[in-house]
Amino acid sequence: MSRREAGKTSATGQERSSRFRVVGDGSQLGPPDAVYREEVQLALRNRGTPLEGLRYPITPAGMHYLLSHFDIPDVDVSQWRLEVGGLVSRPLSLTLDDIKARPSVTLAVTMECAGNGRALLNPRPISQPWLVEAVGTAEWTGTPLGGFLDDVGVSKSAVDIVFTGLDQGVQGDEIQYYRRSLSVAECRREEVLLVYAMNGRPLEPQHGYPLRLLVPGWYGMASVKWLRSIECIGEPFRGYQMVGSYRYSQSEEDPGEPVTLIRVRALMIPPGIPDFVTRTRLVKAGEVTLTGRAWAGRLNVARVEVSDDGGETWSETELGDPVSPYAWRPWEYRWAARPGTYTLCVRAWDSEGNGQPTTQHWTFLGMGNNMAQRIDVVVE
Amino acid sequence: MSRREAGKTSATGQERSSRFRVVGDGSQLGPPDAVYREEVQLALRNRGTPLEGLRYPITPAGMHYLLSHFDIPDVDVSQWRLEVGGLVSRPLSLTLDDIKARPSVTLAVTMECAGNGRALLNPRPISQPWLVEAVGTAEWTGTPLGGFLDDVGVSKSAVDIVFTGLDQGVQGDEIQYYRRSLSVAECRREEVLLVYAMNGRPLEPQHGYPLRLLVPGWYGMASVKWLRSIECIGEPFRGYQMVGSYRYSQSEEDPGEPVTLIRVRALMIPPGIPDFVTRTRLVKAGEVTLTGRAWAGRLNVARVEVSDDGGETWSETELGDPVSPYAWRPWEYRWAARPGTYTLCVRAWDSEGNGQPTTQHWTFLGMGNNMAQRIDVVVE
Repeated sequence: MSRREAGKTSATGQERSSRFRVVGDGSQLGPPDAVYREEVQLALRNRGTPLEGLRYPITPAGMHYLLSHFDIPDVDVSQWRLEVGGLVSRPLSLTLDDIKARPSVTLAVTMECAGNGRALLNPRPISQPWLVEAVGTAEWTGTPLGGFLDDVGVSKSAVDIVFTGLDQGVQGDEIQYYRRSLSVAECRREEVLLVYAMNGRPLEPQHGYPLRLLVPGWYGMASVKWLRSIECIGEPFRGYQMVGSYRYSQSEEDPGEPVTLIRVRALMIPPGIPDFVTRTRLVKAGEVTLTGRAWAGRLNVARVEVSDDGGETWSETELGDPVSPYAWRPWEYRWAARPGTYTLCVRAWDSEGNGQPTTQHWTFLGMGNNMAQRIDVVVE
Repeated sequence: MSRREAGKTSATGQERSSRFRVVGDGSQLGPPDAVYREEVQLALRNRGTPLEGLRYPITPAGMHYLLSHFDIPDVDVSQWRLEVGGLVSRPLSLTLDDIKARPSVTLAVTMECAGNGRALLNPRPISQPWLVEAVGTAEWTGTPLGGFLDDVGVSKSAVDIVFTGLDQGVQGDEIQYYRRSLSVAECRREEVLLVYAMNGRPLEPQHGYPLRLLVPGWYGMASVKWLRSIECIGEPFRGYQMVGSYRYSQSEEDPGEPVTLIRVRALMIPPGIPDFVTRTRLVKAGEVTLTGRAWAGRLNVARVEVSDDGGETWSETELGDPVSPYAWRPWEYRWAARPGTYTLCVRAWDSEGNGQPTTQHWTFLGMGNNMAQRIDVVVE
């Protein structure tokens, strides 16, 4: 099934039968200098981590980036249950206390939205207009999913496990609960957790209260929030968020490859002080310590480089230790800042030799654009 | 001094000598269908309260709206001091423990950004592009400023008290710490606090850790975050954030009146479920309970009305009790939703008879635009 079939949309605006007004000219793409009001509305609901927040190894909960497709559900935990069913020996209906009574693990994990970088693309896919800030690292506490699956007795015939949230809405003209699947093998990886706490406190509503999935190394769409059910099924799951979204495609008709693991990326804490509107930086001449964080999903970060000439020449930075095997690591570089105007850049490589490009990685839905960050600086 | 002089800018783009690139055509205004990348960058750093978050009488800390002009400072509380000086008998340098040792008060306060509604204006002032979501209510804990001022012995010759934050940046081409003043009389009002906790927990960095001012009833710009000093002075304070910003002006040359107290506003929790991109709502036909919150700064909310025909006809809603004298109150209306498309609106009146307009309240900086909210709904 192509994304087009899954999305129940058609290639031209004329043929659409959406209940809702279409944003822009119906092409699902917008020009780089005109972000539509609906996209701004999404940017104001969701939020990035302010780049100076990269100074914290563990992002304060209220600073952590956030992306929700639909509304944040209102959950009465006394009524809430996690339903576990499908191809299992022992279907269950569990309370939050049942889940908290299981073995618990706390793990620092860097999470990033697959759409990070989208609004830097030209033409721009119309959706949440991320620039570079859709990333954060939290200490998540929960119970390993694998042991949980052992206890419910997943059938050998199960192929995928479907995770359904309580958040309901319309996307691609399809009414749906937010729903994603993972293969049984991915679910059995030891780092995959059912989590109920973030930075030592119960999840706030916007982060998935009372229970969410956490899939370290994957882009954030895999870590389904506000879990209502877990279902084991015998064939690959083809829900909208698997085939109609989160694809590396080149057009509306191209099904493309699925978006999975987080690609390598480094970010820099903007040095000096900002201009309020443009965020261009004003830096005092002299030695300036440039710092930031880098991550690579399930891989290690092998190298981070910076440039002060917009990417013409690069210098290697010094790497610090990662916060955890699934979290970012700090980097540092001493820059001799002389008066003038500069475009600082940073890029990273992972342990398999993949590096960040300095030009856009364009896809129709704006996924995985890990183009090197650029920061305009005035040194005085 | 006009805003123009304070901002060190001139009326035409040609004459500007800013260190930084100007956004748009230099007019400081943008068209309604083209929000610039720099504005999106601000929207991603700052954040609104998702409208469904209005269901909580006290907004969860991580959902509360946020607006910071410059970067969030990194404060080492062991080194931090609050310096109190100027026209006082006993200048002081205080630790956070000194302040926490003083009498404490906890107060629920609705705070709103003065620029809320800015991006709905046409033409659109270029700045943080708020639609309607820049509001939240928290329980703040701190010590009354008035008693504190008694203890330091404010001179009778003092006119204004200047509050300076640790956040530094450039605005209107002027390098500055964020700095605002209040008259001594305003500072002595019993509800004005120096606060160190929000919803029962120490302030997170983005909300002003370790200490901020809280001025209930005023728009948020008065509640200076990351306080570093309090200075009593003998003449009206004319810093950039007093005369170059936060003015009800009609042009760059017009000094206008200062922005002060929060104007009356009601918001509705969007009913039904959202379309992901447009946020248009899909509602099932039948009786639908429309709910939301309304507030009026230092005044009471007298009446809230809703419309299902884009503001042609209105019906009165039922009001609940306010959370505190300085916080919003809930409203409710039972709507008989029949199949069709609707634009729901809500508007409120305060206890002095001021109501929300249904057309824009245009100002050059986009301040105080409390135009009635509009929500597009499809009933099926």
